[in-house]
Amino acid sequence: MKRWKRIRREQGPQIPLFDLEFHYMENPRNQSVLKALVLRAKDTVNVIALTADQEVLLVKQYRFGVQDFVMELPAGLIDRDEDPISTAKRELEEETGYISEEWHYLGFSYINPAYVNNGCHHFVATNAIQKGVLKLDDSETIQVSAIPLGSVPNYIRKGIIRDAISIACLSRFLDIRG
Amino acid sequence: MKRWKRIRREQGPQIPLFDLEFHYMENPRNQSVLKALVLRAKDTVNVIALTADQEVLLVKQYRFGVQDFVMELPAGLIDRDEDPISTAKRELEEETGYISEEWHYLGFSYINPAYVNNGCHHFVATNAIQKGVLKLDDSETIQVSAIPLGSVPNYIRKGIIRDAISIACLSRFLDIRG
Repeated sequence: MKRWKRIRREQGPQIPLFDLEFHYMENPRNQSVLKALVLRAKDTVNVIALTADQEVLLVKQYRFGVQDFVMELPAGLIDRDEDPISTAKRELEEETGYISEEWHYLGFSYINPAYVNNGCHHFVATNAIQKGVLKLDDSETIQVSAIPLGSVPNYIRKGIIRDAISIACLSRFLDIRG
Repeated sequence: MKRWKRIRREQGPQIPLFDLEFHYMENPRNQSVLKALVLRAKDTVNVIALTADQEVLLVKQYRFGVQDFVMELPAGLIDRDEDPISTAKRELEEETGYISEEWHYLGFSYINPAYVNNGCHHFVATNAIQKGVLKLDDSETIQVSAIPLGSVPNYIRKGIIRDAISIACLSRFLDIRG
């Protein structure tokens, strides 16, 4: 299968969060040229943090995209020069006040490969313990909850957890069939 | 938990695929105002199409966001005035040449709730049969494959299927723990 050829790349308008580019792509099937929107950002991480009682930490935030509260795994953007596991530890502590010494890698997923370049590294952290309080920036209001691991499939079936990237992570660890 | 208050909404630059808006949002915790990027588009659908032999149809496309080939479930954007099930039937036929008479709804996930307003309706279609040839537009080059349903968890573990929204759909139907 032939790759599309990028004829040229053009910087788009300045927006928050992303580098917005237009890529002029030539279709190998018919040589037609398409102007594709490409949003570029650093990769992200998310974390299944389990307490000793086998409860999973969830964060509920007001999300501006869908203009509603959304229940998600603790997650965040990898900072410059940070490696994914360091981001995972930092975000877990910042968003929940919990830390863990036991970390395992679960895999990587693309968030929206059609027009976003980045993806998400999935982790599980066991025996998480509450260390401190949340460190929230001005764009965050977060409510932390802990639910039994066994309830997660039901939360997904009922649509209480409906964030695809959280589900992609949870499904590496749990049977969540409907 | 208090909602953020939208102070005003501003139209952003014109780009393909999305209505780009800026929402000025007031944090209920400290009244600071944040300029949030919001990308608006219609909802999408994706489909687990199973043949009588219990094989799943996958489509491999060159995706401009990640600049690589990505293996996904057949999927697409809901057209104006279309309902999700009609989109699912249309996209399955357009992207694979297969049709089915047996459709079941699996649920709904948000794609990226932080800055995108839309989500994806998940379907499963059983006893899919090949009816015709692909109807591709100029932005598509698609390679269709059919893999045994039982191989899907291994494809996910190995990172061959790594699209979060495909995994969110597949996990409603299969145990894909790593």
